[in-house]
Formats: sequence, C-alpha cells, structure tokens
Amino acid sequence: MRPAAEQLDLLRRGIDAITPEAEFVKKLEASARTGTPLRVKYGIDPTGIDVHLGHTVPLRKLRQFQDLGHTAVIIIGDYTALVGDPSGRSDHRAGLTKEQVEANARDYLAQVGKIVDLSRAEVRHNGDWFSRWTFLDVLDLTRRMTIGQVSAREDFALRLKSEKPVYLSECLYPLMQGWDSVEIRADVELGGTEQLFNLLVARDLQQDEGQPPQVAMTMPILVGTDGKQRMGKSLGNYIGVSEPPETQFGKVMSIPDEPMRQYFTLLTDLPMAEIDAMLAPGVNPRDAKEVLGKTIVSQYHGPEAAEAAAAAFRRRAAGEDPEEIPEVPVPRDQFDADGRITMPRLIVALKLDSSTSNARRVIEQGGVTIGPDRTPVTDPKAPIAVPDGLIVRVGKRKIARVRRS
Amino acid sequence: MRPAAEQLDLLRRGIDAITPEAEFVKKLEASARTGTPLRVKYGIDPTGIDVHLGHTVPLRKLRQFQDLGHTAVIIIGDYTALVGDPSGRSDHRAGLTKEQVEANARDYLAQVGKIVDLSRAEVRHNGDWFSRWTFLDVLDLTRRMTIGQVSAREDFALRLKSEKPVYLSECLYPLMQGWDSVEIRADVELGGTEQLFNLLVARDLQQDEGQPPQVAMTMPILVGTDGKQRMGKSLGNYIGVSEPPETQFGKVMSIPDEPMRQYFTLLTDLPMAEIDAMLAPGVNPRDAKEVLGKTIVSQYHGPEAAEAAAAAFRRRAAGEDPEEIPEVPVPRDQFDADGRITMPRLIVALKLDSSTSNARRVIEQGGVTIGPDRTPVTDPKAPIAVPDGLIVRVGKRKIARVRRS
Repeated sequence: MRPAAEQLDLLRRGIDAITPEAEFVKKLEASARTGTPLRVKYGIDPTGIDVHLGHTVPLRKLRQFQDLGHTAVIIIGDYTALVGDPSGRSDHRAGLTKEQVEANARDYLAQVGKIVDLSRAEVRHNGDWFSRWTFLDVLDLTRRMTIGQVSAREDFALRLKSEKPVYLSECLYPLMQGWDSVEIRADVELGGTEQLFNLLVARDLQQDEGQPPQVAMTMPILVGTDGKQRMGKSLGNYIGVSEPPETQFGKVMSIPDEPMRQYFTLLTDLPMAEIDAMLAPGVNPRDAKEVLGKTIVSQYHGPEAAEAAAAAFRRRAAGEDPEEIPEVPVPRDQFDADGRITMPRLIVALKLDSSTSNARRVIEQGGVTIGPDRTPVTDPKAPIAVPDGLIVRVGKRKIARVRRS
Repeated sequence: MRPAAEQLDLLRRGIDAITPEAEFVKKLEASARTGTPLRVKYGIDPTGIDVHLGHTVPLRKLRQFQDLGHTAVIIIGDYTALVGDPSGRSDHRAGLTKEQVEANARDYLAQVGKIVDLSRAEVRHNGDWFSRWTFLDVLDLTRRMTIGQVSAREDFALRLKSEKPVYLSECLYPLMQGWDSVEIRADVELGGTEQLFNLLVARDLQQDEGQPPQVAMTMPILVGTDGKQRMGKSLGNYIGVSEPPETQFGKVMSIPDEPMRQYFTLLTDLPMAEIDAMLAPGVNPRDAKEVLGKTIVSQYHGPEAAEAAAAAFRRRAAGEDPEEIPEVPVPRDQFDADGRITMPRLIVALKLDSSTSNARRVIEQGGVTIGPDRTPVTDPKAPIAVPDGLIVRVGKRKIARVRRS
C-alpha cells in the first residue's frame, strides 16, 4: 500500500468534504501501517435505470479506493428502494414494487460494472437483513432519531416550510441507510453532498453498536450539459454511460465552457497540471472539449470508438456527410406510375420526420437537399424522380439513402 | 335495546365531545333498529400498575355501553407499550420490556374488571397482529402519515416548540393505535380529550381499508385531589381503585369543593337532579362530599365498607382515636433498667417516624400525646415509664399501642 499521505492526496481530488477529516487521516494511516484495507461503502437505490455521468462521480471515487487497495462495498438498497429515497428531491417519491426493484438492481449493477471492478467488490443487498426485521426491531431503530433531527435535513426542511408532505416512511430512510453501515462495518461512505445528513446518521448508530464510526466523503453534484442544473434524466441534460459513442461525444461538445473544469476533475484521471494547461486563457476551449469528450467516451467504449466519434463530429461540423449513411427501404407503392413522389411524403417514408406538414415547412425554409451535389428542394408539391441510392438531407443532422424495394 | 335517542341521552353524560356527532347518532339508530350491538373500543397500555379514578372515567363509559347492550372491546396494547405512549406527557417515555408488559397487563386487567364486566367483553392483545408484521408492513403503515400531521398533535407541538425530543418511534404510536381499530372493526373509540388526535387517525386507516370509520368519544381529564392538576400517580393527587376504603374515603373528603361536580358526574351514577340539589348554594358541601365518598368507596369495596370508612373518618375528625389501634411490639432491650425510654426513641421503635430528630421536633411543637387522657409529652430528653398497652399519638393521624415483648 502507498503511504497514507500519498493516498490522501489522490483521494482528495474533486471531493466536496471529508467529515470529519482528521478521523479519515487516522483511518488511512492505520490502514497503511497494518496493511488492512478500508471498507468503503457506496449505496445504490435501484429506483432508476440509466446510469449517467452524474452517478459516476462517487463510483469513480470508489474505483479509486479499489485501485489503492481498499475494499469497495456496494449496497444494493433493494429494501430501501421500497420506501423511496427523498434525498435532494422536492417531492415525495413513491416506493417501487419488489419486482421492479429486482429488475432495476440487476440492470443497475451491469452499468456500475463499467466503472467499479465488481470482481473485487463486495455486493450486499440490504433486504438480506431488513427482510428479517420485526416491528419491534423497527421501533428500536426509530427510537434513535427525533422529529427535530429529521426536520433539520435540508430537503425535508424545505418541504416542511412550503407545507409539502414529508411522510413518516421517508424518515425511516436515513435510519435504514445508517444501519447498512452497521451491518457492513463501513469505514468510509461515499455520497453526493446532499447525502451528508444520511451519512452522518450512521455514525451514531455505529457508536451505539460499539463500532468505530464511519467517515463521510461527499462529492459535488455534477452539473448537466446545460451547465446550469444538476445532471438528471428528467431534465434531459444528461450523458448516459450506455449511450453510443457519437451521442456521448456530441453531448460533451455541446456543454458550455464553464463546467469544463468540473468535468475534467471529476470525470477523468488527467493530471491537474495538464488540465490547467488546456484550460489556460488563450487556448481554444474547443480543443480541450475534444480531449474531454474522447477521454470520457474511451472509458465506456474504448479509444478507437472515441476517435471515430470525434472524427464523425468534425466531419459533421464541417458540413460533410457522415461516413456511413443509413439506407432506408421505401416500398414501390409509395411512388407514382412514373416512379416519382413528392418530397414531404418521401421524408416521412424515410422516417426523417413524422409528419408531411413539418417536412413541408423545412422544405420551404430551404433545409432539404438531395444528391451528391446537395441540390436544394424548394417546391414541396412537385413530384420528384427518385433514383435508387438517392441521398436526402433534412436540416443539419438528418440524412438517409433511399433503397427502393 | 332502548331507543337511540334515550341511549344518546345517557351516553352523553360527562363526555367532552363526540367526533363527528352526527355519525354517532346514525350508528346508534342503525344499531337500535337492527339490534346489532356497536363495537366500542377502549385501549389500555399496560405501562403502569395502579388504576386510579382518572382511568375509570372512560372505563365507566365503556361499562355504560355494555349495560346498554353494546360490545366492549378492550385492546391490551402489549405491543404499543413497548414503544411508550407519549399522549399528554411532556417528556419522552421509554418503552418497557416484554416481561414487564405481560405482568402489567395481567395486573391491569384484574383492576379493570372492577369497572367493566370482563365476562361480556372482548379482550384483544395488539401483539397478536403486530408481532407478525415485517419491516415492509411498517413502511406501508408509515406511508399513511406525514411529519406535518404528527407535528400538529398538541403535545408533540409543545415539545417541538420547546425543542424537546419527539422520537420517531413515538410517531408510530398513533398509527398503531389506529390500526387496532381496523383489526377489530371499531364503531366507537373512547379516550381522554388528549387522545382525540389518535382516535381520528383510525378513521383514515379504516376508510383506506374499506371500513366505515369509527366515532371518537372523548372524556374530560379528571382533576386530582388537589383540585388543580390532572389526577396522576406521580403527582400524588390520585385515588387508586385498589386502595383501602378508609384511604379512598379520606382522600375524597380532602378534595376542594370546586371539582365536586366533575367527580359526581364522572364517577357516580347519581341522577343529575340529585347532584344539583346537593351542590345547591346553602347546602353544606361537607355533606355532599360524604355522599360522594360513600358512593365511590361502595363501587370498589361495597356499601358496608363505605359506611365504616365514613364512620371512622367522622371519629377522627372529632378528635377521637380510631376504633382499631395498631399494636406494635417493642423489644425489651429498648428500655433502660427502670423500664423507661425517651420519647423520640419510642416513636422510632413504634415506626411512627423514621428519625429521632424528626420526632424531637414534633414533640417540641406539642404534637405528641400519650395515654387515654392525651397527656402531652414536652421534653424530648426525659425518659418515660412505659406501661404495656400505652397509646402514643404523633400528629393528627399517626397512632400506635405499645406491646412490650
């Protein structure tokens, strides 16, 4: 194991806070001295499906701990998911059914495996312990927290203030999460900044049970591709780890300049000095963004796919047709006796738009061209002779090749 | 069954509120019309031991329902007792162990049997259902209530305002009590005024489960013998149903005049007209108090014991010694060679006081007399000749006869 100071330096990258930091230093030192790995917990509630880069921030930190020789313990909150985690949500979130939770858990873990080395991780399901609990056990747990404590939690406080309901079931969540730490004897727990309250509940429970309390390592919330709100699926400002290389790359290129430092710090392992150089004044941010995009795409699809995605992006930016143009079969009966068709009907047949009226508008705006010479189509009503293999472009992004069938 | 209107008239005596009253009238009418008894619930938490007159207020109402042909359903909250009911308490009350709860329940029921006809009552233990619940069942229950709702409960609100802890476990209590009503399909639930919140929680749960909601019948809180605070063991202002006749009678005679109407209304079946006559201006309240005392003592010890207690009280009030004076053996070695002893030492030997210094003070204040002639003892230091059978009086109440052994 590397010396504690060196580990601390690496682990500090990109984090928001270590609470309490002095305890963490002591834990690292004892671990390095005795060669005993720290048990680093990260809990996942299988309530969603698509892991995006926002989720990867703590997962990458977990992987960093693994690479330093520590033990990653992933808690699948299959039981807690039945309650619904209200953290950082402004509304009550209903729990899921048992079947949904199981399916989500399998799917989630498959995605997590792209970041964490699951072969070296402990994966535990909190249903393993909570499913055996009686009412009395729950009562005993709920004796450890007061309404005052729960109401102090930032998101709950906001909801209480605006008179939105906070259900008692939601109050059980931090206690359950805390108990997970007791069960697995966690030394460190990772989470987003908004998780700090939950991560600290565990400390009291662990001490009650005679265990050394865990340290909370909180990570900043990744901003979405809009550069404004937190990354999230519902806001449409996310980059999913399962998205194809070109989509991922294109999305990275679309982010404003401002969040680039955060993205580099949290989503890549590039040395900070290198990052500083790329983001220095006078350097074209477009170049840095391309490095960022390729680095991120490489992590999920490999360096070749990343290069290809970058090349395709450049071609498109230069107004060139992409290297591969999808061929779309258009049945014979779509054409008239002379083998002709109006352009709006052809665009719909090629699935480049869903309505002929939309297509008509784009044509009138001069957004449709055909053939190698990019001949503009201007009359939406004129039937056009369509040779097999004709290329049709709609707007800047949409393109297809006619395959008469 | 008597007509609903007549029953309503009887049942209204002494109550604080029926919520909602219109529903109760409909239930009574349907019951009288179809001859179907109402199911009247009263829950008891076996957390204490001595049933006092304050507890008998709802129990007597329950008995009245029985006498009108309805079904009394007594819930022994053996499971809820493990949480501790915070109703009307200003502090968190810790739960009991399972063993304590079982012993208390047996003892409690024996005392309740002095008021309710247990042979005609259903007695249910809520551990019968709650002990089978899983964590998920509890979560499902806690989804039915918000922090806002719980915080509105008067006693919780007070504690929250003064920053005293309200434990999450305590918030489960009203939900558990409410679920009891679902299990036994209660039509009416009885309780003290401070129970109104809890009694209404059941209505929501019952409706969620497709049952007609129960009606809450709340009773005023009986004031203690001090005429000021609610009757309670810890305040020392209570009259226990298991206390001896003379103690009960004496305590009734000690109450101020003000709460007499409440005592008559809630603790006796005397017609209201008769009570009005006794409490009319110009009538000596002492006489009314004696009727009250005898009526109450009769309920727990029979009319003869009540009369005897009243007679003994009159004698003592007139300054006479009681009919039976306890004999206390005093060993020979307590006396000097001449068969004498100082009065403070004799008082302690007779167990009339626990310390000689206390006894000395009472002597100096002129509070000690001996013999049939009530000769005052004035010198605490003078040894006194003590014949066998000597009567010693300390203050107004304490008396013993020396039995030299």
